Amino acid sequence: MIELWNYYRSGTSHRVRIALNLKGLDWQYRSLNLLASDHKQPAYLDINPQGLAPALVVDGEVFTQSPAILEYLEEAYPTPPLLPTDTAQRAKVRAMAMIIGCDIHPLNNLRVITQLKALTQTQEPPVDWIGRWISEGFAAIEALLARDPSRAIGCCFGDQPGLVECYLVPQVYAARRFGIELSSFPAICAIDAYCATLPAFQAAHPDLQPDTPQ
Amino acid sequence: MIELWNYYRSGTSHRVRIALNLKGLDWQYRSLNLLASDHKQPAYLDINPQGLAPALVVDGEVFTQSPAILEYLEEAYPTPPLLPTDTAQRAKVRAMAMIIGCDIHPLNNLRVITQLKALTQTQEPPVDWIGRWISEGFAAIEALLARDPSRAIGCCFGDQPGLVECYLVPQVYAARRFGIELSSFPAICAIDAYCATLPAFQAAHPDLQPDTPQ
Repeated sequence: MIELWNYYRSGTSHRVRIALNLKGLDWQYRSLNLLASDHKQPAYLDINPQGLAPALVVDGEVFTQSPAILEYLEEAYPTPPLLPTDTAQRAKVRAMAMIIGCDIHPLNNLRVITQLKALTQTQEPPVDWIGRWISEGFAAIEALLARDPSRAIGCCFGDQPGLVECYLVPQVYAARRFGIELSSFPAICAIDAYCATLPAFQAAHPDLQPDTPQ
Repeated sequence: MIELWNYYRSGTSHRVRIALNLKGLDWQYRSLNLLASDHKQPAYLDINPQGLAPALVVDGEVFTQSPAILEYLEEAYPTPPLLPTDTAQRAKVRAMAMIIGCDIHPLNNLRVITQLKALTQTQEPPVDWIGRWISEGFAAIEALLARDPSRAIGCCFGDQPGLVECYLVPQVYAARRFGIELSSFPAICAIDAYCATLPAFQAAHPDLQPDTPQ
């Protein structure tokens, strides 16, 4: 049995939902309400001592950290693949994913924004902060996408969505939620629009999860 | 020819130096002075449009984002391995690495601290901010290390340093530089101390690079 401890609006949770769906796996939704601090309760800390979403539990074995979970899914369930076969191409796909995984999302998640509001003594999310990291990271991804003439419109690599799209679609969702202007990123917007037509992405969308507020 | 565009004190650069040395590869040091904004000059932006260190160039092919570079090195030069062979164990090793790669380092690097000082209108690095992410992340790693009874003292997994140590040793170096108290993290300190005895880690140390100030 595959269980995913997650939260409808968490970007890292969203990534793993997409990957599970792209792999065609049958999985169970386990809800963590981050706003109610479910992830800091002893029952969840027994599963994931870091106290962060998501955690994937496969036949009782626990996997944490979404980048590690995605690599695990690729190794344990190789078909359909999320990564190309060529070593150099795999590295370039992973690099685009890591721009989001390391240089955008970690700076804009709930615990970091909460801490930042405390430091700056403001009530509102600091849009300049959020927008800077999203815009700089998306600009880098656009530049890398422009270097690949073989790329199909609507995909980051080849002609099927894969690892990068698992990161990109949740980050575009978050950018829109924060009101960040995305018109400078046409390739990213085209990829997001194409993915929105695919069932794996539709079923993973934050609006449609068991814990999504009515 | 393998060239690494990097900076002596950049944590992500330090990671890749360790991995190159653990793999026993012959590589060339290419210096980027981040304080002089070398990484924002056109010559480097042609190599890495994201304008961040490090970039690895192998026979003219460019690889960016240190987590992607480390996975590339593991695939292109598999011996000695940085990861175990078992799929589930690989995921657990990667999860520890990603605690540093996603939840500690991105919050404490130069561009983020600079932006934070601007937001909070302070001159000094905000030690509470830096210390919080290091302490929370290191506590999670200690908890995960404690779950593995087969682990040798001084290594995160098995009896040789690998992927986690590539992330951990630079992060411990940075923690000490920021004056963060580490006595609550005995397993991490033991791993760091063991790695400090090994030539691959000694040669990668920030104090001993071509661009280290005298």
